Formats: sequence, structure tokens, C-alpha cells
Amino acid sequence: MRKIDDIAIDMGLDPGKLEPYGLDKAKVPLDAFPNGDDKAKLIVITAITPTPAGEGKSTTAVGLVQGLAKIGKKPVLTIRQPSLGPVFGHKGGGTGGGKSTVEPAVDVNLHFTGDFHAIESAHNLLAAMVDNAVFRNSIEGFDASGVTWRRVTDAEDRGLRTIMTGGGGRLNGPVRETGFDINAASEIMAICSLAESYSDLRDRIGDIVVGWKRDRKTPVTAREINAVGSIMALLRDAIKPNLVQTSEGQPAIVHMGPFGNIAHGCSSILADKLAINCGDYVVTEAGFGADLGFEKFMDIKVRQGGPEPSLAVIVTTIRGLKWHGGVTINDMDSPNPEAVRKGSENLKNALRIVNMYGLQAVVAINRFPTDSKDEITIVKEVAKSAGAF
Amino acid sequence: MRKIDDIAIDMGLDPGKLEPYGLDKAKVPLDAFPNGDDKAKLIVITAITPTPAGEGKSTTAVGLVQGLAKIGKKPVLTIRQPSLGPVFGHKGGGTGGGKSTVEPAVDVNLHFTGDFHAIESAHNLLAAMVDNAVFRNSIEGFDASGVTWRRVTDAEDRGLRTIMTGGGGRLNGPVRETGFDINAASEIMAICSLAESYSDLRDRIGDIVVGWKRDRKTPVTAREINAVGSIMALLRDAIKPNLVQTSEGQPAIVHMGPFGNIAHGCSSILADKLAINCGDYVVTEAGFGADLGFEKFMDIKVRQGGPEPSLAVIVTTIRGLKWHGGVTINDMDSPNPEAVRKGSENLKNALRIVNMYGLQAVVAINRFPTDSKDEITIVKEVAKSAGAF
Amino acid sequence: MRKIDDIAIDMGLDPGKLEPYGLDKAKVPLDAFPNGDDKAKLIVITAITPTPAGEGKSTTAVGLVQGLAKIGKKPVLTIRQPSLGPVFGHKGGGTGGGKSTVEPAVDVNLHFTGDFHAIESAHNLLAAMVDNAVFRNSIEGFDASGVTWRRVTDAEDRGLRTIMTGGGGRLNGPVRETGFDINAASEIMAICSLAESYSDLRDRIGDIVVGWKRDRKTPVTAREINAVGSIMALLRDAIKPNLVQTSEGQPAIVHMGPFGNIAHGCSSILADKLAINCGDYVVTEAGFGADLGFEKFMDIKVRQGGPEPSLAVIVTTIRGLKWHGGVTINDMDSPNPEAVRKGSENLKNALRIVNMYGLQAVVAINRFPTDSKDEITIVKEVAKSAGAF
Amino acid sequence: MRKIDDIAIDMGLDPGKLEPYGLDKAKVPLDAFPNGDDKAKLIVITAITPTPAGEGKSTTAVGLVQGLAKIGKKPVLTIRQPSLGPVFGHKGGGTGGGKSTVEPAVDVNLHFTGDFHAIESAHNLLAAMVDNAVFRNSIEGFDASGVTWRRVTDAEDRGLRTIMTGGGGRLNGPVRETGFDINAASEIMAICSLAESYSDLRDRIGDIVVGWKRDRKTPVTAREINAVGSIMALLRDAIKPNLVQTSEGQPAIVHMGPFGNIAHGCSSILADKLAINCGDYVVTEAGFGADLGFEKFMDIKVRQGGPEPSLAVIVTTIRGLKWHGGVTINDMDSPNPEAVRKGSENLKNALRIVNMYGLQAVVAINRFPTDSKDEITIVKEVAKSAGAF
Repeated sequence: MRKIDDIAIDMGLDPGKLEPYGLDKAKVPLDAFPNGDDKAKLIVITAITPTPAGEGKSTTAVGLVQGLAKIGKKPVLTIRQPSLGPVFGHKGGGTGGGKSTVEPAVDVNLHFTGDFHAIESAHNLLAAMVDNAVFRNSIEGFDASGVTWRRVTDAEDRGLRTIMTGGGGRLNGPVRETGFDINAASEIMAICSLAESYSDLRDRIGDIVVGWKRDRKTPVTAREINAVGSIMALLRDAIKPNLVQTSEGQPAIVHMGPFGNIAHGCSSILADKLAINCGDYVVTEAGFGADLGFEKFMDIKVRQGGPEPSLAVIVTTIRGLKWHGGVTINDMDSPNPEAVRKGSENLKNALRIVNMYGLQAVVAINRFPTDSKDEITIVKEVAKSAGAF
Repeated sequence: MRKIDDIAIDMGLDPGKLEPYGLDKAKVPLDAFPNGDDKAKLIVITAITPTPAGEGKSTTAVGLVQGLAKIGKKPVLTIRQPSLGPVFGHKGGGTGGGKSTVEPAVDVNLHFTGDFHAIESAHNLLAAMVDNAVFRNSIEGFDASGVTWRRVTDAEDRGLRTIMTGGGGRLNGPVRETGFDINAASEIMAICSLAESYSDLRDRIGDIVVGWKRDRKTPVTAREINAVGSIMALLRDAIKPNLVQTSEGQPAIVHMGPFGNIAHGCSSILADKLAINCGDYVVTEAGFGADLGFEKFMDIKVRQGGPEPSLAVIVTTIRGLKWHGGVTINDMDSPNPEAVRKGSENLKNALRIVNMYGLQAVVAINRFPTDSKDEITIVKEVAKSAGAF
Repeated sequence: MRKIDDIAIDMGLDPGKLEPYGLDKAKVPLDAFPNGDDKAKLIVITAITPTPAGEGKSTTAVGLVQGLAKIGKKPVLTIRQPSLGPVFGHKGGGTGGGKSTVEPAVDVNLHFTGDFHAIESAHNLLAAMVDNAVFRNSIEGFDASGVTWRRVTDAEDRGLRTIMTGGGGRLNGPVRETGFDINAASEIMAICSLAESYSDLRDRIGDIVVGWKRDRKTPVTAREINAVGSIMALLRDAIKPNLVQTSEGQPAIVHMGPFGNIAHGCSSILADKLAINCGDYVVTEAGFGADLGFEKFMDIKVRQGGPEPSLAVIVTTIRGLKWHGGVTINDMDSPNPEAVRKGSENLKNALRIVNMYGLQAVVAINRFPTDSKDEITIVKEVAKSAGAF
Repeated sequence: MRKIDDIAIDMGLDPGKLEPYGLDKAKVPLDAFPNGDDKAKLIVITAITPTPAGEGKSTTAVGLVQGLAKIGKKPVLTIRQPSLGPVFGHKGGGTGGGKSTVEPAVDVNLHFTGDFHAIESAHNLLAAMVDNAVFRNSIEGFDASGVTWRRVTDAEDRGLRTIMTGGGGRLNGPVRETGFDINAASEIMAICSLAESYSDLRDRIGDIVVGWKRDRKTPVTAREINAVGSIMALLRDAIKPNLVQTSEGQPAIVHMGPFGNIAHGCSSILADKLAINCGDYVVTEAGFGADLGFEKFMDIKVRQGGPEPSLAVIVTTIRGLKWHGGVTINDMDSPNPEAVRKGSENLKNALRIVNMYGLQAVVAINRFPTDSKDEITIVKEVAKSAGAF
């Protein structure tokens, strides 16, 4: 692996301003961001609707960065940090695969630079402060029945989904029915992904609604709980993007990981803002398929201030199209052009969605050894006739 | 602040082997420990029984290191990492005070190098795996009523002390009455403080008893839950001691923070083993007073393999002795020699305890502006006649 | 009110064999049932699909008995005992209205002869014994996660719908997520309504499934819990039908009250078996409308051994048909023949259902002062053309 | 068994005013109480401190009534109704033993006339109404954390001792940590035992404290919950004493059964007030030993309006004194005069307590075949020298 300082120099960053975490990871403080004209072009990687077979968006994103470097360009990758829970829950990490990975993969998949832990601490500190406010009746009209803020954990822990808290007598109150979500689903994770600066972060944290007063119409915010200062202290470092590298030594910024199902599923705006002034091309990934993640990317991340993309890549596999065409996971390996054609409707729809935003799309077929020539041909035809670039 | 690399060099460590966390913190991997003859002398800081007034053990420990440096010695400090919970619960950090602090104090008091987060993740992953084993009936004779392993959090969260988990229907089971402790009270925290190597850590983790079979006689261990590998992955970095510095630039190793009330309350054995070959003197602190923390230091940490101390320092304040002499916290500021004399029984007992272990003790009076000459004289006399060095 | 002994004599019962509860209520022991040829004709009262306006099935049933008596017949009424919960929850009792009531109405609506209390005690004793079996591991393979038997209460108590039991430490176990239903929903209530004799009751009680073993395939029954003897002791009197009278002095047997929504909603088979040999006509009521309660009456109560009906009466109101025709509850008082015609589809369907069982139906219009002549005419026409008797 | 009407006639009651429950039980309405000069003498049965061997207070009380009848007196017995829970929990009923029982014993031990069920319904209806008031915020400053009113059940149900209610989402609230007590421990049971009239009952019910407002100083009463009317309806019959008979046909009034450990452990004041005008002697029982139950009888029941006793009987057994003298339950059968003498200290104390109230005491030795002559002699001597009558 290359030294992280060398990667930084390639990007035009001052290595003296980085905060190293070991020799191969570093945080980039916000005041170390280069000024510039945002001249790099942003390419967003999306896909057909996800299937159990897996399409390989992250791997394609890493591979594209490696390829751009091979032809002499200066690319930067920006992707999400994977969750710890699913790692031990055997869903696999989110650092690419094969020869196209982000390194050091083990670190990125475990504690990395502590961002997720910081978000968990901040989220749960707020929960404790909310309960304390209720316990002490410190906010007029706000009691235990009005709290909506839950807690988060990084473990896949089914027993914590619905719990009763505050047992063991009056001193342990308030008694509530609540539960834990995975910390990728924390609202604070989503906020950190969208914040543009410390002051923006502070405002967004303050605006968090933690519950409702007894009239069920008046929200209670984190600001009223007096939790903003403590949360800001806990998030001080988490907001700084993390710099690592691809397995071939191109810069990779891995920052934040809001879930695509309940949040917007993209890496942070700050990561893209950093990257856009550090090379020719920024390759980023939008979680889930074009029909969910790409729309969220455009409607949420870009509208909230993220750089505009110049091109989309729609990743597909022959296997995934077969699955959409009705083939079960056990029958993936036999050629089935008919099913591929049928399943290609999903690809067409992905192209339609991307075009709807005035953007052109390249279709990338992530090939497997079992793909037949006929099947590949079908997909190419469908893609072209549906307007692929 | 000095560069952490320079501190390392002073200690005889190869800075290239350190794992930096920013410019002023670093982890020392176990294979970077210098070989040596353990020639440094270990001084352990203890105190009279703690009072609401506070005695200042950490501040004295830092000050002693600074003083030893002033007279040309090469001292190393080893102390516990403070808990996040009490920080926000307003108990104040544990990084000394005044001109005798450990730096960067804010970092040390917050996430630091992520050790506590790693322990929390490991502890709660084990909890999730235990519940999962129960849910799936994968261990013969082990059901929900036999689980004793709880969960931990870094927040002071009274509502989580006693909870009912597994609500919301059969898929969320098992239903249990359990709760969260502060993560400084995690058995894994105590284990990490006592472990001597990765293989020792692995053995100790495997031996954790997570519950009992239906006969209430057969323990179930983390090993049987198949949790050891995942936990070891999560603790990979946490086991490495953290190097920072005092406010005057001497090396300070801050590692692990088991609570003194329910665990043994000392920094890690690995920290002392590292320090003992990196200078002339190692100054360490035993949590709580001589009657609890010092005994635990000797009976647990030293017996489990920690270096033997050469001297103890018993920290006392005039105010603390007054309190032991029956003066309330509001009347601390008026001179009261009689109360000081009465309260000195506690100091005598501290001396008796230290001597019982065949060790000599220096009494350190942590002075306050309100202390009167008479009061100081009394304490000196008592200390000497009770055998203080 | 007539003396209950005189009512009994009219029915051909030996008053010396009755068990009096005050002067106006009595239980009829099973060995006091007259032998006979079941010669009375059974008339079952049903209705259109219930509406918020209320149709008046019970009132019609009582009125029909009073009318039959007026023309010299010897009728007997058999109806359900109302639940205590809804009484205090303001749904009104179930003892008819106006001049057609069952008396003593207050008693019948409150504790009556204690049958519901006995069922509650039996149900909850079984729950306690099931939990105890789990707590003591006395049934191989049966643990807390497999219990499905809940508890019952006679109060409308929303807080008890979903509860966590077994808190407060290990001695209070097992910890379970469970809850309370209204006791009219108890399986034991349904069983008592269907049982034909003490031995049949004993068999049915023994067959109750209280949960499942860990394989989720093997049921655990009340018999295995050794609960049958105690439950039989508690139900000894509850199984005996209760004799009271209408407000005009005809015999009324009020016995059992399983809810129509989750159980079969009819008074007991034993009540009908008693009545069928005590007069010329037995008038009984099937809960809810023809599309639910009447089908349950035929498919469950009659098939399980209840006497076969000779005629059905379908109670309707102009208001109810308006409601089915789309009129809101506030606009009930203005004539609206169009809505009545539209809503009469529901009445037609009720007739269709009754006829499907090979039974003829009389349509009874429960008239209100606001009903217009036109509206009445429409209903008459619809009823006749749809095959009403 | 004699007809209950004949028993009533013997007592000077008008059988036409009784409310029969079967042929051998009847309730005596308050307006059927005879006027009189309270001329009967009241004898209260108490005992040494209870032992696992059992002393036989109830049996002695029944036997005394039978004996008084044998010598031509007109005695009336008043005792507590036993709890259903302990019956199935194998503690045995409370209707005497051998040839001195209260009949019909099975009925008295099961549902009897429904009084306990009525109390349970009233208690739990209040609980539901309290929770509802909290759920709807209908009482200013009163939320779920302030509720102290629990629920009751007649089953020995360990799982219900501590529960979390209100699970399953917001509509099921309030979420509370609470639990069930045995219904003999209901405050309403104690109130019914002490009430003198319907209006007194209504006042006492209204005064029940169900919780505290948020200031933790302002009580909330059943009156504020608007529960008094409904509770009075439910207790309408329970307040009427129940008349049965001894196995030799003397009148026995069995009414109410508050636990002696947490309540005052005596049958109702109304029962004594009825009995005191219905014969020459009223024999009643005070729960537990002289050192607890007799004091409660005098300090609570008599002070609250119960008739004054003229004599106390202290029941003892040789076995019980042995137990107090240190003999284990397995060694009860061998003579041990020394242990008897030692244990007699307990008897002396019982005598001292009774005398303290200015009352004379007869010591009744409930003899067993294993008692030796010597042992009997010792007890006689001790009793006499300690002032027994």
C-alpha cells in the first residue's frame, strides 16, 4: 500500500494538515479542504433494482477509478462506510471485491476512524438526556408517552428492537416502550452525511425532533433538551472525511453510511465537496437501485448541496436480469436468454429514471463466467435502444 | 505540545512502529514493546478513602512525573482512560488538573483512540450472539431464563438499567429482563486490563460465563457461543496501549479504565509492562482509596502479572481529613484542627494497609489555600508516627 | 316480578331442585333437566349486518317471547349473558330495552350468578399453572417462548393488552410478552357454551392447547399441565344454566356469553337443551348479523349438538338500512327512501344466507318514530321479493 | 345440613329478607339486621405466634361454638372467608377441620357468594380507570410515573408480581411498571371489612389514594377518577354478610378475608355487628398470632367500630411450643418437655399482650395424640403462672 501522505500529495492536499490514523488512514479536517472551482466531473454509480445475486456497484466504482487512472486521469472515489452490524451478520463488507477493493479493507469494515461509534454515542447521549428531561419534568407538557427518539447500536440485535425501559423501580424511570435501531439508521448519521459545515451541523442537530408534547402537536427538539453542545463535542471528528486508497493506490474517501432503505443511502456531501477539487473525476455510488437510491441521490443529496453529476453508470449483471425475469437463485447458472430479455425491463426503467433527471447513463455489465454471448448481446441491444450512452 | 514521535524516541521506542492517531496520540503495537530487564521502579499512587472534596490522585501522579523530570529522571506515567458517561454526567474527566494534566485532555476524555467503543461493540456483539443462541435453541439446555450477560453503553442512562427485551412478537425474542451497565463496568474492560498478550486475551474472552444451563450448575461460555473470533477482531487495536504526554511533555500511557467499585480500577498490565522498560520510574495510579483500590491493585493486578511496585504514595487533603472527621462539605473552609486529627484515623489506616503488603508509603498532602499551618502540622505528625516514609 | 319458583313450575321444573340466587335468580343443575322429546320449536333471532344505530335483536327476542305468551303459547327465551367490561365501557347491557327486558337487569349485567368470574378464575389459574410449569421446567421441551395461553379480565383495560410479565428478578419468572383479553373472549367461555355435560366439559378443557414445545410442532395441553381437576372444580356451578324472567314474567335462560367476533357468539347449548323441553317455543339469539353470527350459530352451535332451529327472524331497522345505504349517523332522522332501497341489499343478503341453510326467515322491522311510510313499504317489498316468509 | 332458613330463624332473622345462594348459603342485607342492645358477649380467638405445625385457631373457634351450643347457649361464629389462591396453592382452606368445620366447606373455599370476585372486579376496574385518566391526561399534573394503584388476582401467579403494561404501541398505553397482588391484599378488601354502612363504604372508597401528582406531594383519589359510583355498584352485594353453619348446625357468618400480614386480618365489622344481636355469644377469630393479629384486631377493628371483646382465647399446641423451643418439624413426635418449656416463652408473651389490653385470656391447648402428659402439665403451669384465666 502507498503511504497515505503520498496519496494526499497527489490530491493537492497538505499532508501536514491531515490527521493520521495509523499509516494508511487519515482524516481531512474541514480547514484542509483545497479551494477551487469544483472542476472535476462527478460520475454516479447506480444499478438495476438489487437482487439476491448482487450487482457489484462498489466493485464497479472502484474498478472505474482504477481504469481512469490507467488512462492517465486523476480520479477520486467517494463511497459509504459499511456498517459493523451486517459485517458480523454475514452480509459482507462494502469495500468492493476481487482486484477492485478499498484498503485497508479490514479497518474500514471494523472501527475505521471511529465515526460510527461517535454517532452512536451522540445518538444515545441524546436519548439519555431526553429521558432525563422527562424523568425530571423539566420541559412543560412533555412526558414519557410523547418521546419518539429511540436508541441505536452497531450490533444486529433482534432482542433490542422493541424493549421496555425504566424497570426496577421509580429511580430508573421513565418507563417506556422503545427500542434500538442499527446505527446506520440514526438520524444523526443522515445529518452528518448532509451537513456542509460545523455551523450547519449544529443547526441540523438542534432541529432534531425527539418527541411531542401532550397536545401531540408541539414538537420537542434536541435544542430544548440542551443536548446540542455535547453532541457537537462528540461529532467533532466524525464530520471530517476519511482518506484511504484503492487497491491500486488511487485516493478513496470513505465517509458516513446512512442506510438506503430508511435514509438517503449516500456518502457525505463533505466527501464530494473535498473530492471535487482534488482531481479530474469523482466517482461516487448511490445506494440501492436507480429506482430508489439514484432518486434519493438526486432529490436529497444534490438538492441539499452535493455537487451535480455529469454522468450516471447503471451496473447490471446477466444474473440479476435473469432474477428479474423470474429465474430462481438456484437456476442462475444455465443460460436463459428469454428470462434475460424479460428481466431487462428493469434495466430499461433504470435508464428511464436517469434520463428523467436530464442525465446520460452508461450501462456497465458486471460479467460472470456463466454469462452467455447471447445474453450479453440481448442486454447490449436493450440498453442501446433504451437510450444508453 | 511535543510531537508524539519525539516522546516515543525519548522512551526508546521506534516511532516508525507506532500507529499515530493524529499528531499527538499513538498506539503502541505489542511487537513494538522494547525488550529489557524491567529496570524502572514502579510508584503507585493511592489515597485516603475518597471524599466528596476530591483528593487529586491523578493530578498528584502527573505532578510527580513532572517533578521527576525536573530533577533529571526519566519517568513514565500510566493511568486509566476516563469514561465518557461521567464526563457528560458532570463528574469531570480523569486527566489531572491545574498545571498537571495529560494532553490532549479533550481527546482523552472523549473518543480517544476508540478503545472503549471497541469494548462496547465487543460486549454488545456477545450479548446479541448469546440471545441469538437462545432464540435458536442452539445450545442444549440453555434458555432465556439462564442468560446472565447484560449489555453496556457509554451514556449515563438510568432508563436502561433494567429493561425487558424482545418485545413486539415472537420474531424479536428472546424476551428477557436484563439491562445495560456503563461500559467501564464491562467484564471485557477488566479482561483487556489484565491480558498480557493476544493469546492470553483470547483465552480469557473464551472463558467468559454468559449464563447457566437449566440445571443452574453448568456454565455457558463465550467460547460455546462461538463469539471469540469476532470479539478478537473487534479488540485487535484496543489492546494496544495509547501514548500521549503530560502538559510538560513527559510520556503518559493511558490505557483501559475498569471501574474501581465493581472491577479492579487500574490501568492495563500491558501499559505497565511497556512503561517498565521505557524509563527510570513508572508512576501509576490505583483507583479509589488505599482501603479498596490499592488492595485490588496488589491482589489482582500485581498477582495477575503486573510489575511489583517499589513505593506507594498516599494522597491526602486537609479537606478530605476534615470530612472524615465529621465536617460537612459546606464547612470545609474554616480551620478545624480537631476534625483533621479525628479524620486522620483514615490516613493511619491507609498507611497500615500499604505496610501490610511490605511496602513503604510517602504521604502527599495536596494543599489548598484554606489549609492552616496547624492542620498541616497535625497531618505530618500523624503520618510520621504511623510509619510514613 | 314473579317468584322464580313459579317460573320454574310453569316450565315443568321441580323448584326444589333449583339453586336459588336471591329470590329472582336460580341455577338449574344438570340433573334437574326434564327428559322429553325436544318438542318445542326453536326460533333463532338474527339481523342485518350491525350498524352504529343498533338493530335491537335482544329486544326483539324478548318481545317475541312476550307476544307468544300473549297469544297463549308457552315460550322460553335463551340469551347470552352480557360482559361486565362493556357495561362500564358504556356499550350498554345486553338485556333488551323499553318494555321488553330480562329481569333483574342490573344483576344480569353485573355479577349475576358468578359464571363469568368462575371462568376468569379458571382461565387465569391455568395461566398461572402454565407459567409455573415453565418456571420449573417440568415439561420437557416446553419453555417460556412457547407459551400461547394468555390471561383474561372483566375490565376494559387497554394497558393489559400487551404486557411483559415476570419482572423483578429470577424468582418472579418466567419473563414473557403476553397480555389480557376480555373474559368473554376466553376459550373456556367458548367451551362452556358448547359443552353438553360434565364429562364433555372435562374432555374439552383437557384438550386446550396452552403452547408449543421447542420444535413448534408439538402442542402442550391443559391436561399435561395437570390443570383439569382444579378447573373443573372452579366451573362446577358455572356450567349450570341460569333462570330469570322477562319483564312480563316468561322464563328467560341467560347462560354464557362468548364474543361474536372471535368466538361463536351464542348462548350455551345446555341452555337450549333445557329450554327445548320446557315449553312450546324457544326463542334464541345469534350474535352479530346474519353474515357472521347466524352462520356461526348454524356451523358451530348446531353442529356441535345444539337443537336445530325451525325458523329465523331477521331484525332490521329503517335506520340501519339507511346507514348501509350510505347515510351518516347524523342524518338518520330525515326520510331517505333511496338510501333505504340501496341499503336493503344487505337485508337481501341476510335472507339469502338464511335460505342457504334450508331455513325460512321472517323479517322483523324494529320501528322508530322517524321511519316514514314509504321507507317501510320499500323494506316490505324488498323482503317479500327476496323470499321472506 | 340444616336449612339456612331455620338457622336464620334461630338467630331472630326474618328468612324472607335473606338472599339465598342455593339452599345452604344466604346473604343478610343490611336492612335485615335486627335492632338490639348488642347484648351478646364477644370472644376473640387468637394464638401463639404461628408455626409450620399449625395451631388450629379456626378449628378451635368452630369447636367453641359447638361446645357453647351443647351447654344450651346460643352462639354465633364470625370468621374470614379463605382466599382462592392459597386453596390451589395447597395451603389448605380456612374452614376448620375434623368434626369442627364450617359448611358447605367446598363452596366457602371456592367462589362462595362471589364477594371476592366482586372485590377483584372493583379493584381492577379502578386500575383501568386510573390508567385511562393518565392515558387521556384528564387530571392535571398526574402522569403514568405517579400511579401507585396496582391490580389484583385470585391466582397465585408469580409472573404477575412485577409486570410492564401498555406494550404494543401508543394506543395501549400508559406504559408502566406495576403488578398484581393476591386479592386478599386489596385495599378494597380491607375497606369492606371495616365499613359500617353503604355511605361509610362510599366515603372510604372515594378516599383511596391511587397515585401522586408530579409534585409527589398531592395525592390523587378514586373520587377524582370518578370511579366511586361504578365501584359501589360492583360492591352492592359483597358488603352483605354471608350466613352458613357449623357442621353441627350453629350459625356461622363468613365475611371478608383481608390478609393478616399486610392488612388487619379479621372478618368484617358488619358480620360482628350482625352477630352481636343474634345470640348470647359471638366467637370470632383474629388472624396470625397474638403478637400481630390480636393487636391489629384491637387497634384497628375494635377502634374502627367493631364490638369490644369480653374474653380472648389463646390457642396453642404442644407441637407449636416445641417448635418455638427449637425443635425441627421432623422431630415433633418425640416428647421433649424441655423444648416445650423453652417455647412457652412465646405463650407467656401472648398472655402479656392480651392482658395489656385489659382483657382476660383462656389458654386452649389444641391436643395431638403425641402430646405427653408432662408436656401438657408444663403448659398448664406456665399459663396459670402467667395469668391465664
